[in-house]
Amino acid sequence: MRNIKLTIEYDGTLYSGWQKQNNAKTIQETIEKALSKILKAEVSITGSSRTDSGVHAKGMVANFFTDSRIPAEKFREAINTKLPDDIAIIKSEEVDLDFHARYLSKGKTYCYTIINRYEKVALYKNYSHHVREKLDLELMNKCCKMFIGKHDFSAFKTAGSSVKTSVRTISDLHIEKEDDFIKIYVTADGFLYNMVRIIVGTLIEVGQNKRSIETVKKAINSCNREDAGYCVPPNGLILEKVYY
Amino acid sequence: MRNIKLTIEYDGTLYSGWQKQNNAKTIQETIEKALSKILKAEVSITGSSRTDSGVHAKGMVANFFTDSRIPAEKFREAINTKLPDDIAIIKSEEVDLDFHARYLSKGKTYCYTIINRYEKVALYKNYSHHVREKLDLELMNKCCKMFIGKHDFSAFKTAGSSVKTSVRTISDLHIEKEDDFIKIYVTADGFLYNMVRIIVGTLIEVGQNKRSIETVKKAINSCNREDAGYCVPPNGLILEKVYY
Repeated sequence: MRNIKLTIEYDGTLYSGWQKQNNAKTIQETIEKALSKILKAEVSITGSSRTDSGVHAKGMVANFFTDSRIPAEKFREAINTKLPDDIAIIKSEEVDLDFHARYLSKGKTYCYTIINRYEKVALYKNYSHHVREKLDLELMNKCCKMFIGKHDFSAFKTAGSSVKTSVRTISDLHIEKEDDFIKIYVTADGFLYNMVRIIVGTLIEVGQNKRSIETVKKAINSCNREDAGYCVPPNGLILEKVYY
Repeated sequence: MRNIKLTIEYDGTLYSGWQKQNNAKTIQETIEKALSKILKAEVSITGSSRTDSGVHAKGMVANFFTDSRIPAEKFREAINTKLPDDIAIIKSEEVDLDFHARYLSKGKTYCYTIINRYEKVALYKNYSHHVREKLDLELMNKCCKMFIGKHDFSAFKTAGSSVKTSVRTISDLHIEKEDDFIKIYVTADGFLYNMVRIIVGTLIEVGQNKRSIETVKKAINSCNREDAGYCVPPNGLILEKVYY
């Protein structure tokens, strides 16, 4: 038995997210089907994250077990020939049998893209969220610092998710700007459901002067979802990298 | 009678190009239909360029005549409410009656995006052309200089187009790189049919060491299409700006 690790890029636009489910096309299922054709047997893969519908990835990691003798690095091209254009295996490699894409992840980096201009936007719509009011980046940058560190992020998760603890450590949260494009990068040891999207929504409200930086501190302390900002749409979000 | 100038952004992915034609959805027709709803009369608009199927624009310019008393700057929002998500009027303004979007254009800038990496690409496919072999940017930059100036670009046009002269002046041709993304910007007083895409294809062949810089000089001198490179796909191309 061997354990194969895959690094995967995908455009989530046409998928109902990563995780397999009935009556919906998902990334996981599409890759499993491609892999099953090659291995001529059913196979299930374990992903590091369950990205939502419309969310993209540059560096999703997944693993699967196989008795096949296909060299590990050959899986990349073999699977790619069976995949649609919007999913790409970037790397395939053999790892220890105890490697687990989800449980052993030490952290992840996500990037969220905003197009910030008054005019309507027609280009890059599947990869960005349009904000018309000019954002105050200086305020947003100040606010970024408040998120960094170990906190209970209960106010920044969508209810209904069952996790043991809502304490996470954000090691980096910073903003890059180029023309109308604002990219927010966030790295943490783990993320709660919709955590990135609610943090970004809160930062946007700060940048729009709709809320003060103090209200963000309050949200972090209160652990109350109502004290945090809105949840931005999924299509601006990219899973950049998973760390082990 | 008033003459209204529009600046337009669009995602060309789902359109059969700019120009109106039978049995195909085009940008021109979509805007004309939106405008006709507002003016409650048929109206035809004149575009500065006839972009091909799949080509995008950040700054297409068009104009139309109207007797309507709607303030010129109000057309922007009015038309946008009648347009689909992938076409956006960025600006509407009144111009002299003799303004003509096509005939009075003094020049245009196009940008072509290449993703240059060995691995399969899944993201940004509608906005880029994938080249696997590592491109030699130093050679490509050298080659750019050979295009700049006034030349007969007959070797760099697709046959069948009827124009009086194939002499054009390229004032700028340069390459910008960021990670795997290579962007080729070209500015000229006018472009022949497929000229940008054939110049880019030729530059790529130089960067792949499939042809020498000397063969490019030969193509410019011979005016023979067979001496130039391949025509890259349309989806990597964006009309950036039109000058008057």
